[in-house]
Amino acid sequence: MDSNLSYQQVLKEGENLYHPGLSIDCVIFGFHKNELKVLLLKMKYSDKWALPGGFVLREENVEDAAARILEARTGLEQIFLKQFHLFGDTRRSDSGFNREFLEQHGIPYDKDHWLLQRFVTVGYYALVNFANAVPRPDPLSEACEWKDLQQVSLLRHDHNQILDKALETLRQELRYQPIGYNLLPKKFTMRELQKLYETILGKKLDRRNFMRKVLSYGILKKTGEVRTGAAHTSPQLYTFDLARYKQALQEGLQKVW
Amino acid sequence: MDSNLSYQQVLKEGENLYHPGLSIDCVIFGFHKNELKVLLLKMKYSDKWALPGGFVLREENVEDAAARILEARTGLEQIFLKQFHLFGDTRRSDSGFNREFLEQHGIPYDKDHWLLQRFVTVGYYALVNFANAVPRPDPLSEACEWKDLQQVSLLRHDHNQILDKALETLRQELRYQPIGYNLLPKKFTMRELQKLYETILGKKLDRRNFMRKVLSYGILKKTGEVRTGAAHTSPQLYTFDLARYKQALQEGLQKVW
Repeated sequence: MDSNLSYQQVLKEGENLYHPGLSIDCVIFGFHKNELKVLLLKMKYSDKWALPGGFVLREENVEDAAARILEARTGLEQIFLKQFHLFGDTRRSDSGFNREFLEQHGIPYDKDHWLLQRFVTVGYYALVNFANAVPRPDPLSEACEWKDLQQVSLLRHDHNQILDKALETLRQELRYQPIGYNLLPKKFTMRELQKLYETILGKKLDRRNFMRKVLSYGILKKTGEVRTGAAHTSPQLYTFDLARYKQALQEGLQKVW
Repeated sequence: MDSNLSYQQVLKEGENLYHPGLSIDCVIFGFHKNELKVLLLKMKYSDKWALPGGFVLREENVEDAAARILEARTGLEQIFLKQFHLFGDTRRSDSGFNREFLEQHGIPYDKDHWLLQRFVTVGYYALVNFANAVPRPDPLSEACEWKDLQQVSLLRHDHNQILDKALETLRQELRYQPIGYNLLPKKFTMRELQKLYETILGKKLDRRNFMRKVLSYGILKKTGEVRTGAAHTSPQLYTFDLARYKQALQEGLQKVW
């Protein structure tokens, strides 16, 4: 929703405000204390949670709309948002849900109301440091919360499918793109980096293989410092070599061909 | 365009037929004799070539629309089409072009005509065996031809950008997905497979490294036969192990993590 308008205005006049039949849904993953979470909204009068989303203004680039929606829900600006798929099945959205929704909010409608038409939706995902994001429900929602990925129940429309596809994309991209900057503290141990990978992949990795492979990418620098305070061990602290990290984002982690 | 309607009907009544503000553009790569080509259309009255594309019927899945458009242009059915990006910038399409187009075809219009509105477009790409595809111009086009990638000039709207993004996606996917089935003959030499990779990547590869890497994926079987007839050499013939090939399409070529 566009925060400069009342939700009643938006619901009535959306047809003039927005590009028709197109929505955006954001899968915002948060990483915190070795857990992967996803940001979900619960709309008023609804018993289902949903991905935060919105519409594209008639004079707005789709990329800009996605950034605006992310900022509105999390307060985060200039976050790396990645478009991953357009969901375009005819039966993907539930117009019965939207009809009830209009009734519950007392908005008059007829069968041609813009919210009752078919929508295709563009999925974007972001991976954010959950400690920096402050979830904000919009006027149509009663809650906006981080949920454990394991505990996500049946979502509205096809949002479970959108979430699954985002996670699948993220896991694929771990194969050839670096990850961790903005998610880990500036200095981190090899164990902490491994935990990030394990959390996203949803499985344990072999410690030696992980270290050998991740060092082979040349994106890490030793700081020369160790983490003190832990019992029995003083693990080395690493940091990202940002120039190489950014190069790897462009060119991939390994020269395959 | 939907082939069951005259183009005049489509141009006049598109608003009722199609999902609003949404188009599809297909980047159809063809491989033949070690060359990579792309299928382009030239519309009547236009001096610019364009990617073949179309619109999504109101009751049609976006995926199905892409397959329909591919079949209409190439006669190819059940081809692997991959969605790669939604292009959603406000300035991406040229409404001046569409206005001229309506005038040239003698279609009456006002400023609200559906073709003069903003369109976002979904890009799909396919890689086909060019020998099996018979390019077919539609009634609005004067030509539909395979063009060498190197010789593609300035295309209509943002189609050069769409083509570049498709090629970039294809090259990225070569890092972790198998390729070649349906493009190479059933039995092929290592040199022929290498040529396919070199053509897509646009660069030479080291013969030994290529062979070592591609064999490590476990998707090739030796047939025990050799190609005869060439001077001085009798290269081994390989074939794809289809079960492993399909598994690699699902899971990636290498276990990275």
